[in-house]
Amino acid sequence: MTSSHVRIGVIGAGFVGSALVAALLEEERHVALVDAATGTIELVGVAVRDITKPRPGVPVELLTDDALSLAAREDVDIVVELVGGIEPAKTYIETALRRGASVVTANKALMAAHGTALAALAHEHGADLHYEAAVAGAIPIIAALRSSLAGEKITRVLGIVNGTTNFILSKMTMEGLDYGVVLAEAQALGYAEADPTADVEGFDAAAKVQILSSLAIGTSLQGEEISREGISAIRALDVDFARRYGYVIKLIGVVERVGEWGVSRRTHPALVPASHPLASVNGALNAVFVEGQNAGPLVFMGPGAGGQPTASAVLGNVLHAARNRNAGRHDVPFTVDDRLHNVDIADLSSVFYISLDVVDEPGVLAQVASVFAHHHVSIQSMEQAGLASDARLNFVTHEAKTSDIDATLTDLRGIAAVESIGACLRVIGGAA
Amino acid sequence: MTSSHVRIGVIGAGFVGSALVAALLEEERHVALVDAATGTIELVGVAVRDITKPRPGVPVELLTDDALSLAAREDVDIVVELVGGIEPAKTYIETALRRGASVVTANKALMAAHGTALAALAHEHGADLHYEAAVAGAIPIIAALRSSLAGEKITRVLGIVNGTTNFILSKMTMEGLDYGVVLAEAQALGYAEADPTADVEGFDAAAKVQILSSLAIGTSLQGEEISREGISAIRALDVDFARRYGYVIKLIGVVERVGEWGVSRRTHPALVPASHPLASVNGALNAVFVEGQNAGPLVFMGPGAGGQPTASAVLGNVLHAARNRNAGRHDVPFTVDDRLHNVDIADLSSVFYISLDVVDEPGVLAQVASVFAHHHVSIQSMEQAGLASDARLNFVTHEAKTSDIDATLTDLRGIAAVESIGACLRVIGGAA
Repeated sequence: MTSSHVRIGVIGAGFVGSALVAALLEEERHVALVDAATGTIELVGVAVRDITKPRPGVPVELLTDDALSLAAREDVDIVVELVGGIEPAKTYIETALRRGASVVTANKALMAAHGTALAALAHEHGADLHYEAAVAGAIPIIAALRSSLAGEKITRVLGIVNGTTNFILSKMTMEGLDYGVVLAEAQALGYAEADPTADVEGFDAAAKVQILSSLAIGTSLQGEEISREGISAIRALDVDFARRYGYVIKLIGVVERVGEWGVSRRTHPALVPASHPLASVNGALNAVFVEGQNAGPLVFMGPGAGGQPTASAVLGNVLHAARNRNAGRHDVPFTVDDRLHNVDIADLSSVFYISLDVVDEPGVLAQVASVFAHHHVSIQSMEQAGLASDARLNFVTHEAKTSDIDATLTDLRGIAAVESIGACLRVIGGAA
Repeated sequence: MTSSHVRIGVIGAGFVGSALVAALLEEERHVALVDAATGTIELVGVAVRDITKPRPGVPVELLTDDALSLAAREDVDIVVELVGGIEPAKTYIETALRRGASVVTANKALMAAHGTALAALAHEHGADLHYEAAVAGAIPIIAALRSSLAGEKITRVLGIVNGTTNFILSKMTMEGLDYGVVLAEAQALGYAEADPTADVEGFDAAAKVQILSSLAIGTSLQGEEISREGISAIRALDVDFARRYGYVIKLIGVVERVGEWGVSRRTHPALVPASHPLASVNGALNAVFVEGQNAGPLVFMGPGAGGQPTASAVLGNVLHAARNRNAGRHDVPFTVDDRLHNVDIADLSSVFYISLDVVDEPGVLAQVASVFAHHHVSIQSMEQAGLASDARLNFVTHEAKTSDIDATLTDLRGIAAVESIGACLRVIGGAA
C-alpha cells in the first residue's frame, strides 16, 4: 500500500464547514491525520456564498464563490458538501460523483430524498458517498450499521434523532411549562428556527428514519410512506400525566421489522418508561437504540448537532474516503431487498394514552366507555382529572390496533359531552 | 469490483463459536450476507478439542481437532480464533497471518499482551486483524475508534467494561448486600467464575483499557503500567455511603490524556454521580464514554458478553475482512506516537472518599485531621457513622494528589485509635 496525496474541496463554510476547515488546517492535527493508509491530505478549495466576508484562519487563496466549479475540478479527490437542502447541493454532489470523486455530506434532507439514487451513482463511478453527520451528529451510527452490524439481522431501531424537539420536551418535563412558552425560549436561544415546522412537526426526524431504514433493514421504500406526527399538540397536562405514571414524553423515530418482510417506519411522540435508556436522554442530546437478532440492545448516545461534533463526523468520513482512495477501492452501497414492504401504522397495535376534555356531568364515562367497547378497545386504567369546565378523562388502553383507535376517536368526537380530544399518544413498553 | 468466494475456518466452538457457526450456516442469513462487496462466504472448517462430542447443526465433515492445521490450511482465507488465552491461540493467529490469511479474534488477554506485535505482523503480510469482540461484546467501540473517530483527538475514554463486577456492584447497590454474598450468588448464576480473580481484581478491565488506549490515543505503552484496583474490598457500608451522597460505585476503566504527551491508564472502583450516564448502566451491561476535542461526549452501551452478542461482533469483523479481501486491501494498524508517555496514578489528583474504622473516644478526629493537614489534604465533608466498636469516620476530600493520599493513609495507620482503613475510593465529577 503506497501512501499518496488526497485533495479536499469543501462547499459551505457555516458552523460545520468552518470547524472542518480549521481541523484540516490545524498543523498538529494535520500531522496526526497522516498515516500510511490515509496519505497526506490537502485542503485545496473552500466554496462560500460571500467571498468578501472575513474568515479568520482561512487562507484567501483557497476561497471561491463558484461551488459548482469546485465540485467539477479534476484535481479535487473528495468533495465535502455542507450547504444543505436539495438544490443546488444535489447538482454539486452529482457533478463530483460523475467524475469519480468521492463525496462526504451532512445533508439529511437530500440523503432521505435521493440517497438510494446518489449511492448508486457513486457506486457506478467507483466513488464513495459518506453521510455520517446526516443522522445524530458525531454518533457513529451510520458506520455501525454499514460495517460493524453488517452481519446482524436488525429487528428494530428506535431513536431520539431531533435535538430541538428533545430540548423542548425535556424542558417541558423538567419545568412543567407549556409547549408555546418553551418553544419561544428555544427560539430565543437558537435551539429552534423562527419557522420551527421541520423540527416540531417531525419532518427532520422522518428524514433520519428514512436514512436509518435503508441502512438497518435494507429497504428502498420511499420517505413519503413514513408515518409522521409532531409535538406541537402536546400539553403540559400530558407531560404531567406521563410523569405521574412513571413515563416521560419523547419524540421517537422507529424502524421496525413486522413479520418476515414488513417494515414499519414512523416518527411520533410516545410515553417512554422512566427506566428506559431513552428516557434519560435529555436536552439537545440524540440517542439511537438498536436491537438485532444476536447483538442485543445497543445504545449510541451523544450530541446530535453543533458545528464541532458534526465536523468531527465529516472529518471521520473524509479520512475513510481518503483511505479507500489510496487503496483503489470504494465502499459499496447497502444491499436492498425488494421483498420488503411498508406496513401502515393503521395496522400496528400499541398501548395508547388518550385524554378527553369532557363536560363534567353524570353519564359521560358510560357513553365514552361504550364507544371504546364498540371498537374492541380495552381500557387498562382511567382517571378523572380537573373539575367542572376543566374536567378531563385520561385513559390508558390495553394494546389496540391503530385503526381501531382512529375509529374510536372519530366516534368520540360525535358525543356532545366530549368537547375535544386533548391527546392520543402511544405508550411504549419497558423493553421499548 | 468482482465478487468472489471467501473461506472461513473457526477455531473453538464454545458459546461464541457455536453461535457464529450457526449464523454462518443459517441459510436465510447466509443469503443476506452475500452482496457484491462481500462475495460468497463458506465455512470450511471448525476446530474443536473433542471431535466426538455431538454438535447439533454442525456438519461432521467440517470438524477437526487439529486447530494448527486449520490455521495453516492454504485455502482458508479468514481464521476466526475463539479459544482465548495466550497460547496456543497466539501460535494459531501467527500461523494464519504469516501466510497472509486475515484473522478475527475475541481474545482480549492476547490482544492486550501482544496486540501491537500481532497488528504489525498482519500489516507486514497484507492481512487484516480484527478484534471487535475483545472489548464490550457487540458494542462497536473498536470500529468507532478505528474509523469514525479517526479524525478526532480523543481526550478521554471512560468505561464500564467488565460485566461481572458491574453485576456484583449493581446488586450490592440495589439490595444493600455484602460483597461476599453477592459474589457467591453471581458464581451460582454463572456470572462469575469459580476463581473470580481476573474479574474482581480488575485484570480483565485492565486488558480492555490496554486495548482501548492503543486505539484511542495511539500509544504503544505496555499493559503492566496500567494502574489496577479491584472491587473485593468494597463493603455494603461504602455502597450505602455513596447512595446517601448521590453516588453509585462502579468499576471503571479510564484512558486519559494528561497535558500534551501524557497518558493515564487505570482501572479502579469510583463513586460516580447518580446523574452521570454511566451510573444507570446496571447488571452485566457494558458502556463506553468517549470524549474528544470536537466530538463531544459519546456513549456506547450494550451487552458486554454472551455467546450471541459476541458472535455478532465476530461476524461483523468476518464480513469486513471478506470485503477487504475482495477489494485486495487490508486495514492498517492504528498509528503509534512514541512521544506519548505513561503518567503514574501517584501524580494524578482526585477527590477521595476515605472511611476509617476508629475507636470511639474523644480526640480521634483531631488526630486524624492533623494527619490530613500535614499532607495538605483538605477535607470537603466529614461524618461520624456507627457507635462504640462500630464507629467510623467518613471523609470526602477536596481534590488531592494520589501520592499525598497514600502518605496520609500510611500515617493514619500509625494512629492507635485508627483500627483500620475501611475504604479509600476515588470520586468522579458530574462531567466525569
